[in-house]
Amino acid sequence: MPEPTTPLAERPWEAVERMLDVDAALARVLAAFRPLPVEEATLLDACGRILAEDVVARNSVPPFRNSAMDGYAVRAEDVSAATWDAPVELDVSARVAAGQGGVVACQPGSAVRIMTGAPLPASADAVVRFEETDEGRGSGAPERQTVRIFRSPAVGDNVREAGEDIAVESVVARRGQRLGPADLGLLASVGCAAVPVHRRPVVAILSTGDEVVAPHEPLSPGKIRDSNAVVLAAMARAWGAEVQMLGVARDTAPDLTGRLAAGRAADLIVTSGGVSLGDYDVVKDVLRAEGEVSIWQVRMKPGKPLAFGRIGTTPLLGLPGNPVAAAVSFILYGRAAILRLAGHDEVGLPTIEVVTAECHDNRGQRRHFVRVRLERRDDGTIVARSVGEQGAGVLSSLAAADALLVIPESRDRVPAGTRLRAIPLQW
Amino acid sequence: MPEPTTPLAERPWEAVERMLDVDAALARVLAAFRPLPVEEATLLDACGRILAEDVVARNSVPPFRNSAMDGYAVRAEDVSAATWDAPVELDVSARVAAGQGGVVACQPGSAVRIMTGAPLPASADAVVRFEETDEGRGSGAPERQTVRIFRSPAVGDNVREAGEDIAVESVVARRGQRLGPADLGLLASVGCAAVPVHRRPVVAILSTGDEVVAPHEPLSPGKIRDSNAVVLAAMARAWGAEVQMLGVARDTAPDLTGRLAAGRAADLIVTSGGVSLGDYDVVKDVLRAEGEVSIWQVRMKPGKPLAFGRIGTTPLLGLPGNPVAAAVSFILYGRAAILRLAGHDEVGLPTIEVVTAECHDNRGQRRHFVRVRLERRDDGTIVARSVGEQGAGVLSSLAAADALLVIPESRDRVPAGTRLRAIPLQW
Repeated sequence: MPEPTTPLAERPWEAVERMLDVDAALARVLAAFRPLPVEEATLLDACGRILAEDVVARNSVPPFRNSAMDGYAVRAEDVSAATWDAPVELDVSARVAAGQGGVVACQPGSAVRIMTGAPLPASADAVVRFEETDEGRGSGAPERQTVRIFRSPAVGDNVREAGEDIAVESVVARRGQRLGPADLGLLASVGCAAVPVHRRPVVAILSTGDEVVAPHEPLSPGKIRDSNAVVLAAMARAWGAEVQMLGVARDTAPDLTGRLAAGRAADLIVTSGGVSLGDYDVVKDVLRAEGEVSIWQVRMKPGKPLAFGRIGTTPLLGLPGNPVAAAVSFILYGRAAILRLAGHDEVGLPTIEVVTAECHDNRGQRRHFVRVRLERRDDGTIVARSVGEQGAGVLSSLAAADALLVIPESRDRVPAGTRLRAIPLQW
Repeated sequence: MPEPTTPLAERPWEAVERMLDVDAALARVLAAFRPLPVEEATLLDACGRILAEDVVARNSVPPFRNSAMDGYAVRAEDVSAATWDAPVELDVSARVAAGQGGVVACQPGSAVRIMTGAPLPASADAVVRFEETDEGRGSGAPERQTVRIFRSPAVGDNVREAGEDIAVESVVARRGQRLGPADLGLLASVGCAAVPVHRRPVVAILSTGDEVVAPHEPLSPGKIRDSNAVVLAAMARAWGAEVQMLGVARDTAPDLTGRLAAGRAADLIVTSGGVSLGDYDVVKDVLRAEGEVSIWQVRMKPGKPLAFGRIGTTPLLGLPGNPVAAAVSFILYGRAAILRLAGHDEVGLPTIEVVTAECHDNRGQRRHFVRVRLERRDDGTIVARSVGEQGAGVLSSLAAADALLVIPESRDRVPAGTRLRAIPLQW
């Protein structure tokens, strides 16, 4: 648990407010998460998930020596004299199609008509493509008795050896690996139709506040619509989680308690609202009564209050209510928690180097995440340009942004043209 | 339809073989697709999809003038003399919480205790944060009768005006826009709980070939396992489609015909195998009998044969059977078709500039898609290094690659250090 000192319930709230920097807050959040249990998933359902064990090939790929082309299987030495001007004629002793079992031989002085993927006849050691025989030159008819070969192949030409791509019992995919489409194909090709992967995290999402109503509800005076739930749910899904929507809780203990209880089977409960200093916030009291939760003040902007702990045994992340503060905090802490639950080794946010288009003030020693759009200059540098209004409640500028510029807490003023990092927002 | 000349069924197969470059093939494929019909989707279900109509705000955001902070709403002129050394004391005339309806007034010479998001009292024009009052300096008790103000606010300080973020009836999201998490939040905030989006494409996937068995089936002599279906399905899903798995068809007319019929309700049927020149390929005969399908020879590598047309009214894309040829062809043609169906305006594959790590031969005037890994150098250039074996059947090197280096058909030899484009593979 992230809170090593006195249990929270014994102390007044103000006493557990603490000022943390973003890295310390992230480290505390991450310390509470381990990869979820492993389950067998069919290949398609395993896409994007993390493999929990090495997978070994049950068969070679290709499983048998076969033809890489449509043509004639031959013994290379029989046609070593063949040229376009002086072709060598061979008897066609057999035909073999892809998928054909049985054993076909290629007698000395004969050829076997063969299709791509078909097993190479015993004693054949090369395949001559139709285009290099008289069949490919317009003298058609697959029922032919003889074939004229126009080119001398090297031993092995157009032959795929068994195990050429993958040897049986070799490791084809490793524990900890994220499975993409081609990995799934590789697993399928070695006879692996289901794989052990970490269970998909379930994230329960609860909005709080007497002023908050669902998007479809009528908007009476003093109310605002809940935008946090859908933003957080869409992000959680993009990071590979399933979501459970707990709705909007009124600022009453029974309603909050009941909705939190409904989320206890989830792997993570995420709330928004009710964690700032304001004393009307019943949320903090309920979190204290129902679990073990700390409220932190994080040196970041937007976002500063952050609740973290457990309700029963379920980890809880309490985000601020302002839409952009909630979204940015979820990107910083929620994503890492979800990826860790899903079994990812690497949970850090990818960043890129950018150059600031304008001057930024950053008073208050907080790490500032500025909504920007990225523009690529001809010289390859990427310019980060503010999308405008940076208030914690201004969701339109988050929608307009494609990255968050990161201004370190150590910089109180950043001139235009400064090299900084930015977090690309890709969904 | 992409085939402007004689209907296919009247002509022998060899006659319709045609050599196309990649761009011409793509243009013909795309010409056959239009965005799918529009449906109403709930916000969360609309994530990643394309909005079909402009959406107009049903309410302003914020819907009313409110406090951006927890503190005291005042008339700025009443406290214009306040300093830390000489605070101004006001009566606390009321308290207002977020979500509170009703109208509260701020009488001259008084303050209203206010929480973040609560409606600003009439005639108040600024909010002083707790931290700038004696309440924030340790003399607690929210039931207090008076408050001492330590700082003179400007008119508008900590006040959010109604419509500051979004004005009612303004356009908050535009037709053709792809909806990300923040867009969904914006839509929620203006009372839009469901939006018109293009229907999600359904892609039916069929593997063909007597030599092909499903991954879980026993591998008898001469057989290989189907890896194409899962690769194509995972890619189609990553591009936003739903998939319908049609299994593996034997090389018989009844089995092929039956399985194709099962896919007719899909928006696109994708087959793999059976479209090369080999005459054992019953697939081509069935496609001819069941629909109107052309077989093209495309100047690309891996992949060269490509079938395209319709089965009944359902578009069909017939990919080669070799796993990498199938995957690369699907990335080039299938992705564009799926995105177009889903309503995307921009369906081109994103590419980046890279520098080749090694020399590449590219005989045969085909556009070569080389499996590479990208490495970023300190100077910012990105080096594309071959992952090794480039055979059309070698799926392991596609799994190891994170991009496809594009060698134009016009270049028969590319020295190391050449600037070219590459297609990043991101899932």
